[in-house]
Amino acid sequence: MARVNENYLKLPGSYLFSEIARRVNQYKKENPDADIIRLGIGDVTQPLAPAVVEAMKKAVAEMGSPDTFRGYGPEQGYEFLIEQIIENDFRSRGVELAVDEVFISDGAKTDTANFQEIFGINNILAVSDPVYPVYVDSNVMAGRTGMVNDKGQFEKIVYLPCTEENGMKPPLPRTRVDMIYLCFPNNPTGMTISKEELKVWVDYARENRSVILFDAAYEAYIREEGVPHSIFEIEGAREVAVEFRSFSKTAGFTGTRCAYTIVPKEVKAYDSNDQAHSLNPMWLRRQTTKFNGVSYPVQAAAAATFTEEGKKQVREIIDYYMENARIIRKGLEEAGYKVFGGVNAPYIWLKTPGNMRSWDFFDKLMRQVHVVGTPGAGFGAHGEGYFRLTAFATRANTERAIERIRTRM
Amino acid sequence: MARVNENYLKLPGSYLFSEIARRVNQYKKENPDADIIRLGIGDVTQPLAPAVVEAMKKAVAEMGSPDTFRGYGPEQGYEFLIEQIIENDFRSRGVELAVDEVFISDGAKTDTANFQEIFGINNILAVSDPVYPVYVDSNVMAGRTGMVNDKGQFEKIVYLPCTEENGMKPPLPRTRVDMIYLCFPNNPTGMTISKEELKVWVDYARENRSVILFDAAYEAYIREEGVPHSIFEIEGAREVAVEFRSFSKTAGFTGTRCAYTIVPKEVKAYDSNDQAHSLNPMWLRRQTTKFNGVSYPVQAAAAATFTEEGKKQVREIIDYYMENARIIRKGLEEAGYKVFGGVNAPYIWLKTPGNMRSWDFFDKLMRQVHVVGTPGAGFGAHGEGYFRLTAFATRANTERAIERIRTRM
Repeated sequence: MARVNENYLKLPGSYLFSEIARRVNQYKKENPDADIIRLGIGDVTQPLAPAVVEAMKKAVAEMGSPDTFRGYGPEQGYEFLIEQIIENDFRSRGVELAVDEVFISDGAKTDTANFQEIFGINNILAVSDPVYPVYVDSNVMAGRTGMVNDKGQFEKIVYLPCTEENGMKPPLPRTRVDMIYLCFPNNPTGMTISKEELKVWVDYARENRSVILFDAAYEAYIREEGVPHSIFEIEGAREVAVEFRSFSKTAGFTGTRCAYTIVPKEVKAYDSNDQAHSLNPMWLRRQTTKFNGVSYPVQAAAAATFTEEGKKQVREIIDYYMENARIIRKGLEEAGYKVFGGVNAPYIWLKTPGNMRSWDFFDKLMRQVHVVGTPGAGFGAHGEGYFRLTAFATRANTERAIERIRTRM
Repeated sequence: MARVNENYLKLPGSYLFSEIARRVNQYKKENPDADIIRLGIGDVTQPLAPAVVEAMKKAVAEMGSPDTFRGYGPEQGYEFLIEQIIENDFRSRGVELAVDEVFISDGAKTDTANFQEIFGINNILAVSDPVYPVYVDSNVMAGRTGMVNDKGQFEKIVYLPCTEENGMKPPLPRTRVDMIYLCFPNNPTGMTISKEELKVWVDYARENRSVILFDAAYEAYIREEGVPHSIFEIEGAREVAVEFRSFSKTAGFTGTRCAYTIVPKEVKAYDSNDQAHSLNPMWLRRQTTKFNGVSYPVQAAAAATFTEEGKKQVREIIDYYMENARIIRKGLEEAGYKVFGGVNAPYIWLKTPGNMRSWDFFDKLMRQVHVVGTPGAGFGAHGEGYFRLTAFATRANTERAIERIRTRM
């Protein structure tokens, strides 16, 4: 008799964004004329840059000609893209990487969800609270947790509370952990940490032989000096960290799908005889067995973000969203909200007025001013009392949404 | 201390196609002028059909305009593609499917490797021998097997020998199994089974509450009547089977990346209280957590294979490869080889002369006539003494390769 993976049964039924969609659809059914503005899900609105579109069309044309057609590419991605990534995203910041330390994939969600597969099932993991739900859910499915409690927290996971008091910066765990998920600039809080603060984590991992799973999907939004763009800017990080990057938020690839993961050869985990194994060949084995590479035209499109023209156009798109972020931050502050993020990230994390519960604030915002955001409670127990707005809407909708919040909430 | 997934350490070091590449590269280094023809890896050579290229270019252009830009699509794929699949690949054969029973993905390799994740770790699996290595390796990584023996077989897996005596048709297992991987038309043997023969498997699965993981990636190559294109043509299969399909070999998408998996709502597996759980919502949960959908232009390209023009062009590509298959089969038979497959599949499985070991035949073929194929032993213990050639080369290379084998081997 075929048995299910019972770990799946530990997951609560409704996923955050499905529940939001359900409530919005219900409201729209009852109020068909409501002009709803969505600052909820982190999806972009600006089209692909012209240089990206041209490169992708050219690659599609190549696929239509016998002389330039490409079949299976390397599972880990084409070198023409990997070399651009190394040169532009790392060497420019003093970080040296080898070609076989970069793995191209179809998304950072995919990579952050899959990477745990190469670890043993008894590792203890630490996550920020609030947290991007994929880190937790993928580990629940793999069986690395116990059951969920009524606060939505799983046994065996060490949650690191990010609060107003600690400036939304996760504290070091009090008990020893093996796998540490960090995300900076952070989703959902929009906050960053300094190089010195990140070094504390690298040192912890070196001391405890832990591995840091560093999600830098929003790196391109960093504006301030002194904020690390890559964990590999930190001394010793090559021994203990992998890093996830994405073209989704950098170049509007949410619907085009391309990302990459850095796995330095020095990063290790241990078998039950305490023998060290490099994670790089294990991830290569995982990818060559369970993945078959990213579409060639998509990789060609991603490479175009690194041409002079592409870089300029992509920067303009990011500037556009960061101006939205400024407008949201300023508007909310003027309206008296306590606000985090939005300076080095496209996310604004606001404290709900009067400690209102975040789903109540969601309903009030939707019903009273027709603006949809994301309730902080959806990101974890310590997200309760907070609310996330994103800077990815159009300028016009961003301005209208903030005007409504300022004047009618 | 971070621990590795020790199941990975059970996997033998070298993967089949890496070992082939190593030997070919070594030979080319020593013989730089050798004109090597590759009939080894199952990669296509013909360009994308013009209708596909046009649709993909149009979709790329849409991504460059604010009015038509698409961000995140549904993780399970766009309905415009799903509806075409249902209409053309299933309804036309009398199989009805609901939209939410079709899951679009980036590849059948990905899906066949990932699908095991929703099953419990103690299921017993059955695979044909020879077998596509991904079924086995993905289960080894998940911990569903014991150690490997010196024949390359893993403890806890039930291997079903496909031999000359049984016409390359896997026999029913002698002990009860829970997860059954079947692939028809078969990779690597190129053989098919009849509806009556497939019904025996469906009945077995219904009786034993097993699940059949049916890989139909080569369905488009079926030429003979009476050969099932989908397992869902068999009565009762909706209760016990899922099916994997791909655009890779159908429409030359090996480098473009699009596939799909059918998970009927009736297929179930059981928890430790023997309570039944439908696999459809479990797979949806897996995909929404660990995947973010296929690139929009790729899905638009896949949909174009179902237009009148697209269907005609794709059929021409398949005809081209099947003419290659005929040439290979005929040439080998005339040269006195015992040959399987190549009638309803792009693979030809030949018996090595004089029971030569398949890696020895590989070396002989490469060195003597500069033709590269795939040693049967790479697909399992019962692949020893066999050799796979593919019909995916160009016509000219196919003809030259067979001429060389006929005259100089």
